[in-house]
Amino acid sequence: MTDRNRLIYLPIGGAGEIGMNCYVYGYGPEGQERLIVVDTGVAFPDMDGQPGVDLILPDVEWLEDRKDRIDGIFITHAHEDHVGAIGHLWGRLEAPVYCRKFTAIHAMRKMDEAGHDLANVHVVEAYPEVVELGPFKVSFAPVAHSIPEASGLVIDTKAGRVIHSGDFKIDRHPVVGEAFDEDMWRQIAADGVLAYVCDSTNVFSRHTGRSESELPPQITELVANARGMVVATTFASNIARLQTLADAGIAAGRSICLMGRAMQRMVKAGREAGVLTDFPTTVSPEDALDIPRESLMLIVTGSQGERRAASASLSRGKYLGHELKEGDTFLFSSKTIPGNEVSVGFIQNALAEIGVEIVDDNSGFYHVSGHANRPDIEMMHEILKPQIVVPCHGEYRHLREHARLAMSNGMTGVVAANGMLVELSGNAPGVTEHFEIGRTYLDGDAFVGQYDGVIRERMKMAMNGMVVVAVIVDEGDEVLEDAWVQLKGLPEAGSSGVNLQELVEDEIGRLLPRLDAKVIDDDDKLEEAVKRVARKVCLQEIGKKPEVALLVSRLMAE
Amino acid sequence: MTDRNRLIYLPIGGAGEIGMNCYVYGYGPEGQERLIVVDTGVAFPDMDGQPGVDLILPDVEWLEDRKDRIDGIFITHAHEDHVGAIGHLWGRLEAPVYCRKFTAIHAMRKMDEAGHDLANVHVVEAYPEVVELGPFKVSFAPVAHSIPEASGLVIDTKAGRVIHSGDFKIDRHPVVGEAFDEDMWRQIAADGVLAYVCDSTNVFSRHTGRSESELPPQITELVANARGMVVATTFASNIARLQTLADAGIAAGRSICLMGRAMQRMVKAGREAGVLTDFPTTVSPEDALDIPRESLMLIVTGSQGERRAASASLSRGKYLGHELKEGDTFLFSSKTIPGNEVSVGFIQNALAEIGVEIVDDNSGFYHVSGHANRPDIEMMHEILKPQIVVPCHGEYRHLREHARLAMSNGMTGVVAANGMLVELSGNAPGVTEHFEIGRTYLDGDAFVGQYDGVIRERMKMAMNGMVVVAVIVDEGDEVLEDAWVQLKGLPEAGSSGVNLQELVEDEIGRLLPRLDAKVIDDDDKLEEAVKRVARKVCLQEIGKKPEVALLVSRLMAE
Repeated sequence: MTDRNRLIYLPIGGAGEIGMNCYVYGYGPEGQERLIVVDTGVAFPDMDGQPGVDLILPDVEWLEDRKDRIDGIFITHAHEDHVGAIGHLWGRLEAPVYCRKFTAIHAMRKMDEAGHDLANVHVVEAYPEVVELGPFKVSFAPVAHSIPEASGLVIDTKAGRVIHSGDFKIDRHPVVGEAFDEDMWRQIAADGVLAYVCDSTNVFSRHTGRSESELPPQITELVANARGMVVATTFASNIARLQTLADAGIAAGRSICLMGRAMQRMVKAGREAGVLTDFPTTVSPEDALDIPRESLMLIVTGSQGERRAASASLSRGKYLGHELKEGDTFLFSSKTIPGNEVSVGFIQNALAEIGVEIVDDNSGFYHVSGHANRPDIEMMHEILKPQIVVPCHGEYRHLREHARLAMSNGMTGVVAANGMLVELSGNAPGVTEHFEIGRTYLDGDAFVGQYDGVIRERMKMAMNGMVVVAVIVDEGDEVLEDAWVQLKGLPEAGSSGVNLQELVEDEIGRLLPRLDAKVIDDDDKLEEAVKRVARKVCLQEIGKKPEVALLVSRLMAE
Repeated sequence: MTDRNRLIYLPIGGAGEIGMNCYVYGYGPEGQERLIVVDTGVAFPDMDGQPGVDLILPDVEWLEDRKDRIDGIFITHAHEDHVGAIGHLWGRLEAPVYCRKFTAIHAMRKMDEAGHDLANVHVVEAYPEVVELGPFKVSFAPVAHSIPEASGLVIDTKAGRVIHSGDFKIDRHPVVGEAFDEDMWRQIAADGVLAYVCDSTNVFSRHTGRSESELPPQITELVANARGMVVATTFASNIARLQTLADAGIAAGRSICLMGRAMQRMVKAGREAGVLTDFPTTVSPEDALDIPRESLMLIVTGSQGERRAASASLSRGKYLGHELKEGDTFLFSSKTIPGNEVSVGFIQNALAEIGVEIVDDNSGFYHVSGHANRPDIEMMHEILKPQIVVPCHGEYRHLREHARLAMSNGMTGVVAANGMLVELSGNAPGVTEHFEIGRTYLDGDAFVGQYDGVIRERMKMAMNGMVVVAVIVDEGDEVLEDAWVQLKGLPEAGSSGVNLQELVEDEIGRLLPRLDAKVIDDDDKLEEAVKRVARKVCLQEIGKKPEVALLVSRLMAE
């Protein structure tokens, strides 16, 4: 029996993209493997690709079809792209959730908001504690990252040991939380590692990663020399950075005020989990109004330019009674994620108009990444000496580069993007199956598939504008000559200067009496004919072919 | 009389943004100033802000209202953000156009495409040649930039000398075209400079700018060591870079093939204008099919990830018969403009899937900027010693930083964004008037104003989806009970699992008979009532409030 068992790995999200991490491991006879899920993250939509969508979730149909085989869900850390989908997806997977305490606080809130029983979330201690589930033994091995209690997973089956890196960096002095523990990793690797499934986001960064502990001197100096109010933004979940920022404020004799819900929540969670033990006392935004601006430091959300977060609100004017002025200092202790440059630029321009000093990573050294750079990835390869390296968490180019790096150092590198099933056991590890796995959009309260056509239809309206037409077919199956037309997202008039709506109405009015009964009786044919005329008029007048929606009211004899 | 004359500067585009440059200078009594226009550039739309729009043009209403006072239009160089709008806007300004030869080739093509007489474009030689127009004497002073024959303008009136920098860098060895000519600038500045209106795009770049001539060694080495086919992309207008790339190809024994219309056009224009004298012979894409891939180098358009350009086409598969393979090399000899990261990433990921080596500015030194960095801007301040510095071409934060830099060196710095009129003459130079100046969208063939609501309506459809409803009011002013509904960009069903279209139809069908005559007779009230019900159903079912379009067919007694 045993030799028929296999160990598989299937990325469902996060492989071929940055964000939305979701990975599956399986062990057992082919088609009957017991499964565990690692992470259920989200990605964030944009107008360019998913207008109006609230969140992007992994497409878990593959898992749902095999729901009875899922033994557990492991969450490596509390970043949204790892834990964000747990509330939305749990009802479709219904397996116990395992994570460490800080992560659990967030997972539980999400489960609670979705109406799921919190008893499904199990808090696990760090390695060497082991969770045994079916054929799996799983441990949470602490790693340094930009959030507390981030962990890699040590996953043992009879096929051997797999290390799932989670998001990590090599940081021996992370300010808050657990430092990189080389001895622990050497111990974990001592009996051999079959496969290392490893974070690839920073594989193109060639310099050795920098420690969080290199930042406090610069930030302290900046705040000490600031006049006016100081505002600093970073990811709320970067508790170490919050500590550094707050310490710098206190050292400069300033009161600390946290602004933005996520900021409050993260500090509270940090205290609850016991990872944040000497964060200074803060003042509420309301009480902060009584403090002179030169004695105040705000630590705020919105480092990525999010429109409704505190940074954007402050850049637009008064927010919670606070207003920035010429001579204040605004520190972006953060990296602008690709795609967010324009939103962040918006805020910085608004701040510049007020006369606020803007300080960011271009002006000095105010941010370090939470991910392992290329030399740090290589160091982990060297410590773990895995037979196989499977790059995860990265766009295709990151995965490929990481696999090449592994191969150049004598390991087997396997590139597997979302939907590619890798057989890790056996003599020739590699991709053996492809599944069509898309993305699921949370649109309002509804789940919409990436390929359902719903969002595509919206984008077409946005690109082309819309002509809405109503025609009436009477009780005798005769079409009335009049058409009723409305334009949406189109100019009132084009080249002829005549009202475009009226032109379209007239032209359809001329068409309708000429149509023969076969067309009038057939909704599709009628739509085709009306659409053609409406588009022709628009093309001629405004050089665009809009979308057309036709409503045919077929009146019935009473 | 003379003392009543004033010299004014009014940015219409390019100040408070990067791109879409358009500036006005005026001299004369207030309200009767004679005017010249400097540049008529475009900006490029995106899904985020202007879905479906083809081009963004300056809003020239202010100028159109004063059309009889415009003496001329000066185009500093042939980049789209300086010359791109000339064909679209000329008919509204109708003033003679002045530019140097290479620029004129492009301006004339655009005028021709728009059906304007080419005789309106006048080719001017470089400084010291002077164009005299009313109170203005204007010269084109050559500058180094990333396109041939780029120029600053020396604008003289009785109020003094103004230098309009145009886009420029300090480059003493630009490979192709005119080098930075310090002596010329010292001579121009010898009798004093009233104002320097100066490019600000790179004011945050703290290191001294690098010369185009630093690139050939790296690029030559890269191409020499490449296996397989080499593909290189850069801005087609960067003729010097095309020369460097082509030279590197030839040195490695490769035939050069240009791909993409802009690429062909620019090399042709460079030859016509006499700025490109020893560009190697190229082979057509068709003939290139007969050349072994290791003896071929393609120089292609699409460095910014443009979907229909050659780079994107090659990344998707066969293009003009050519297909990339594992081991080929793809060089991005370019900078990714903020906002284009995702499109460029798309191409790079597609190339990585094929197994192509991707080389870009992260992998080595394969690009230099065409704009003056902070130390270079300071050098020009130092050479010209203007009384006033008015930063142009930059977002607000760039303008402000540049003005501060000028002030810290003892000059008067004036920040003026689009619509802010600066009086340069007089004792207290500064902003004296604000005009509401937006942007004009070219949408198909139609001009749409930024604030017309047309694009906003499209974005709302994209965000919220659309419910289209038809109701009928019969000859007796009675509303029929039935409503006809279509959903656009919305899921078929929501939380109840029932077809959403039918639910909306039913609910409106229940509403209609209950409406009283005053509502039925009034299109707005009827729309309000129907909209409220349609949105309520959708909010309940899918958690979204869509846009609603209502068509009321009011039947008339014959």
